[in-house]
Amino acid sequence: MPNPIRLSQRAAIMPASPIRRLAPYAVAARAKGLEVHGLNIGQPDIPTPEAILRRLREYKAPYVPYGPSQGLPEYIEALRTYYAGVGAKLSAEEIFVTTAGSEAIQFTMGALCDPGDQVIVFEPFYTNYNGFAALNSVECVPVTTSGADGYHLPDRASIEAKIGPRTRAMLICSPNNPTGTVYTDAEIGMLAAICRDRGIFLIADEVYREFTYDGKTSRSLLTLEGMNELAIVVDSVSKRYSLCGARIGCIVSRNREFMSAILRFGQARLCPPTIEQFACTALTEVPASYTQGVLAEYQKRRDVVFSGLSAIDGIRVRKPEGAFYVCTGLPVEDANAFAIYLLSEFSLDGETVMVAPLDGFYATPGLGRDEVRLAYVLEVPKLERSMRILDAALTAYRAKVGA
Amino acid sequence: MPNPIRLSQRAAIMPASPIRRLAPYAVAARAKGLEVHGLNIGQPDIPTPEAILRRLREYKAPYVPYGPSQGLPEYIEALRTYYAGVGAKLSAEEIFVTTAGSEAIQFTMGALCDPGDQVIVFEPFYTNYNGFAALNSVECVPVTTSGADGYHLPDRASIEAKIGPRTRAMLICSPNNPTGTVYTDAEIGMLAAICRDRGIFLIADEVYREFTYDGKTSRSLLTLEGMNELAIVVDSVSKRYSLCGARIGCIVSRNREFMSAILRFGQARLCPPTIEQFACTALTEVPASYTQGVLAEYQKRRDVVFSGLSAIDGIRVRKPEGAFYVCTGLPVEDANAFAIYLLSEFSLDGETVMVAPLDGFYATPGLGRDEVRLAYVLEVPKLERSMRILDAALTAYRAKVGA
Repeated sequence: MPNPIRLSQRAAIMPASPIRRLAPYAVAARAKGLEVHGLNIGQPDIPTPEAILRRLREYKAPYVPYGPSQGLPEYIEALRTYYAGVGAKLSAEEIFVTTAGSEAIQFTMGALCDPGDQVIVFEPFYTNYNGFAALNSVECVPVTTSGADGYHLPDRASIEAKIGPRTRAMLICSPNNPTGTVYTDAEIGMLAAICRDRGIFLIADEVYREFTYDGKTSRSLLTLEGMNELAIVVDSVSKRYSLCGARIGCIVSRNREFMSAILRFGQARLCPPTIEQFACTALTEVPASYTQGVLAEYQKRRDVVFSGLSAIDGIRVRKPEGAFYVCTGLPVEDANAFAIYLLSEFSLDGETVMVAPLDGFYATPGLGRDEVRLAYVLEVPKLERSMRILDAALTAYRAKVGA
Repeated sequence: MPNPIRLSQRAAIMPASPIRRLAPYAVAARAKGLEVHGLNIGQPDIPTPEAILRRLREYKAPYVPYGPSQGLPEYIEALRTYYAGVGAKLSAEEIFVTTAGSEAIQFTMGALCDPGDQVIVFEPFYTNYNGFAALNSVECVPVTTSGADGYHLPDRASIEAKIGPRTRAMLICSPNNPTGTVYTDAEIGMLAAICRDRGIFLIADEVYREFTYDGKTSRSLLTLEGMNELAIVVDSVSKRYSLCGARIGCIVSRNREFMSAILRFGQARLCPPTIEQFACTALTEVPASYTQGVLAEYQKRRDVVFSGLSAIDGIRVRKPEGAFYVCTGLPVEDANAFAIYLLSEFSLDGETVMVAPLDGFYATPGLGRDEVRLAYVLEVPKLERSMRILDAALTAYRAKVGA
């Protein structure tokens, strides 16, 4: 008798990306001739450092060979220099180059968790953690953070209450996507203490490390004492150098057994992209002024979006401390329906806005239904227009649905 | 009480790549000043088509943005043209661009199999199928093929005997890595019939599609009747255009539900590399003469390696029909020890050879212990020298171990 033809359970539960699932509506809106301001995805419009683009153009080999599974030695050297600047002295064996931060998270989950194991996440969290968990048959167990607290962490007892026999790791992101929150040294220290006391790994997604505003700084896990065995950092050049499409990230850890497993995982997929690694060897030549300029620009954008949102009737929002996102509740019942309305029914002077509904950034069902994430990755004039569009659309939508 | 600090079971069972696990010995050999001929890995030395390299140099955007999760529309269009040439008329939705063939296999396994499910493979098989299976907590169930039969398939009953309630798919590779075997139309037809009758998916790794010698051709799964629901092709530009480091592959299937799951898997990792996809849009401009020239070169190399191996005392080898690999038994007990001997103790005129022990290409324990895979991806004079080195090394090694 034939087996029934069906896909796997994990294919069934794999969620569509809330960042990308509205893409067909945006395509249709653009086909109608509308200008769609994409605040749904963290795709910076800031130029890549010239040194990196120049190195890219210097790629002159007659073919494009495999590199080592752990990354090109000269790129790993560049990363060692970079991390020394972050305050972490690393050996080459403590760095493993990945195909973007995505693969870094996926490999890390796979090396720590078997099917059915759990990872504690702080919701709202970067939605694709759900996807990597589904791929690995791992469960994301949420600790809920609240906009009223600026999405900072709850007390130790509330976090420890979520730890069970199958808890293998905590996964944090600071500066945070989607909330823009930067965890304090005390918060990072508390999580490290919990992990040490309970024997679980602490994974930090630090891809927004440099993006902190108002003089704040973000503490890297790599600079903590007593965490060599448990601390794992996942990182990427995507946001730092506007290289989202380059797909170059890394895993950093001083746990040798873990890094040996990651190497074996990495050997199966042979290597990360060669040409972009070659281009990124130039990151040691990126002047500090580049990052300062980027930061100043994002802080300006943050201010425009924050004051724009604050001025909208029915919106209460906290000023984000870092990254380039802001989460906000909207005076609607169903942010997803509103996001579709923006793309399919609304426009102002031939323009509209694309946002990411926040429900997909929560693991707890029912949360985030009236919230959205905005990425302030466009120029100030576009952001100003986007805030006006959002304001007008909310008024029109509420009139339509009778809210 | 703290949980015990340990990695996952899948990290424990994830095998080191037999293609790459000898890399430290090669590094040491090169450090001693030896020239090491790398026959261990399918890394072509043939130039990439000029049209693709030219397009690469035309990448002029000021930053490197994310592309769509399913791939750049213009690259998907190029692939549609390519597959039309293979005899398969495809819609854009039937193609999903992946980060190399590796991700294509990994996503496919994940979409078809839950932890504990099984995929039938024909051993010796491309060793990294083991790695992707471990990542997905999936079991590779081997059907053994034999060098005496030119690694062609056994009869239908032997294959069906391996199908159980947890069998989700068969995974084949033709032209084959590591054996060089090209399955006949009758063999492909038999597998398709089994899959239809038993309700399991048929996955074909066709990355060596064009590499067939002596006038043979390889039948693509995409040209079979009655397999729209069950046929899945994984593909890559790595070998076809000497772009191993570009990390551009794809999944092709007419099963819409499967492709929808793959899209959701793909959204989690955002997108494949942007710059290389852009470069590969030029594949429609690659002249037929490029592939003909590559093929003629590989056939020449195949002949040099085959006649070289055939002349070595104690080696019995079948002439490979395609790809650029040959599997051969060696007159030694432990091919792994011999491979290490080649790198750490032997040299001829300052040169030695790196080979891939074949035991890692089997799932059945104990098989392949006296076999190796050679990739004929070097120029003819180097291959001729490599055969002489292998001959001399076997004589010296056997004298040493008293064989």
